[in-house]
Amino acid sequence: MTAPGGRPAGGTRVAYLGPEGTFTHQAALEWARRPAPSGASAGSVDDDVAAEPLDTVKDVHDVVAAGGADVGVVAIESSVEGYVVPSLDALLSSADVVAVDEVAIDVSFDAFVRPDHGDLTEVSAHPHGLAQCSGFVTGTGLATAPASSNAAACRDAGPGTIALGPTICGELYGLQTYAKAVEDFRGGRTRFLVLTRRSAAAAHLARSRDAGATEWKTMLAITPSVTGPGVLARITAAFGDRGVNMSSLITRPVKAQESKYAFVVTFDEAPWDRGAREMLSDLLAAGDSLKTLGLFPAGAGFRALDGVLDPDHAPVGSVSANDSAEDRERGLLW
Amino acid sequence: MTAPGGRPAGGTRVAYLGPEGTFTHQAALEWARRPAPSGASAGSVDDDVAAEPLDTVKDVHDVVAAGGADVGVVAIESSVEGYVVPSLDALLSSADVVAVDEVAIDVSFDAFVRPDHGDLTEVSAHPHGLAQCSGFVTGTGLATAPASSNAAACRDAGPGTIALGPTICGELYGLQTYAKAVEDFRGGRTRFLVLTRRSAAAAHLARSRDAGATEWKTMLAITPSVTGPGVLARITAAFGDRGVNMSSLITRPVKAQESKYAFVVTFDEAPWDRGAREMLSDLLAAGDSLKTLGLFPAGAGFRALDGVLDPDHAPVGSVSANDSAEDRERGLLW
Repeated sequence: MTAPGGRPAGGTRVAYLGPEGTFTHQAALEWARRPAPSGASAGSVDDDVAAEPLDTVKDVHDVVAAGGADVGVVAIESSVEGYVVPSLDALLSSADVVAVDEVAIDVSFDAFVRPDHGDLTEVSAHPHGLAQCSGFVTGTGLATAPASSNAAACRDAGPGTIALGPTICGELYGLQTYAKAVEDFRGGRTRFLVLTRRSAAAAHLARSRDAGATEWKTMLAITPSVTGPGVLARITAAFGDRGVNMSSLITRPVKAQESKYAFVVTFDEAPWDRGAREMLSDLLAAGDSLKTLGLFPAGAGFRALDGVLDPDHAPVGSVSANDSAEDRERGLLW
Repeated sequence: MTAPGGRPAGGTRVAYLGPEGTFTHQAALEWARRPAPSGASAGSVDDDVAAEPLDTVKDVHDVVAAGGADVGVVAIESSVEGYVVPSLDALLSSADVVAVDEVAIDVSFDAFVRPDHGDLTEVSAHPHGLAQCSGFVTGTGLATAPASSNAAACRDAGPGTIALGPTICGELYGLQTYAKAVEDFRGGRTRFLVLTRRSAAAAHLARSRDAGATEWKTMLAITPSVTGPGVLARITAAFGDRGVNMSSLITRPVKAQESKYAFVVTFDEAPWDRGAREMLSDLLAAGDSLKTLGLFPAGAGFRALDGVLDPDHAPVGSVSANDSAEDRERGLLW
């Protein structure tokens, strides 16, 4: 498989939201191990990656902005939970950092034991991990031992412990895999952003082009100077007028300014594509403040986050023009 | 203080997302203890409330839909994390349930000890609770003991334990308050929805009117029959044309239908107000499927969720029409 995004070769320093052994760590390594684009210097990738766990999303932004890491990796969206809002807010509040790539991975738990394990007496994980694998846990008939993190459960596993965690924990802590994919519900995916300095963005995008990227997705923050009825209509009209498709839009309240919002939009072009460039110029002319938050090869990441709404079309209980007046009253609370 | 929303008097059965002793439990009791509107039958409110913890958000919807509870209480939005997407998806997928009120509460942790406590040796909470109170925890100099939930930490506190949890846990488990509001960051708020059967909505809204409500907020799901460039522009124009203010909009992907979305909008009117009624009719005429997800008195809940974006206006690094071409290239990645 050819990776849609490129990767700088040689001595890459990757900061990520730790601790070690999390899904973010796994995403950081998956990104770093992507094949380098042809033409880049070869060599053993693993030897060249220095992955550093940091305590907070802000720490990741700060170390990337200061040049202490080449890239940073943080979660941004999950198929079940939607946007990771603190991560989105950090990106909005970060002056010198921009996202240039993404990685999407399965949120899947493996069960691990020590190679020298004896009789198994307990299952250990973060309480969320135990809850997400409740079928497996109940099936073992063992007691549960909550841990401060899944990685801590794996690191501290005793001879009687089954520890639950991301696949990476087996390798990291020298454990044997007791069972694969023990989560209750399959198919959960999380998308991670690869962050870099704005001044380094052009080089990253050039590498992605070398690796074959031809289509792009852009994450844009729009802050209108005036809000109220009609402002979102004006903004979305600017996209529609230039034929630029929005694939996502959310509002984030701006601190201590009631009714003032920033809009975060993802659209299906690069900012330099003709339609996008015209649309962005229209918004600037209307007085909006704009900031490109990220720009990625249109790879598997976005599509990998399937919807979770059921049923397949409109939410159950919705009404349309064909429904009776009585049904419309019920559906709309008219 | 007069509550903006009304409350049915007498034997109210409140289902909530458990376990006991969570912030949701606290929100459920706060709602149930609101003074009844004048004219409703008096009596001791506490004696009349049966609060039942359930395991999942879906269980809360199901028991409300089946009439096994008068109302259900689930979290929907936090000032830090944004929408609680699984709760929003449950509401979208629930045919017979609608939100008719809301409660917003401070997310604040108290530290508790047993009345007969001895030397204190450990601090216990859910790992998230320990992390959110890291300053206090470090200050004690004690070991940490992760628990499966904050409520479990309080319930199971030994003579040497300081347990962290919502204020309600003191009352619930007969503990002494050792310190109030020990969280690292103050000001976090979470908003909860009060759910009922659609057939009971009119009675709830009448009680809110009796309690003085005159202004309303509506949560609406819009599912366009066709998506693509321009669809969101068309929808937001319908709001702008009728002078209806959207205060929030998010997109939720619809399962297994690539590029198909439902939009969840909150607007500043009741669905029967003139502008809203015209706007909803316009959307129906355009072929959209609609569903009113909730309808609340415009009380303190929404305003209580202040923004968290810093700085006070546009995100740092944003550019506007007045900036130089060079700055615009940097901000937009043109």
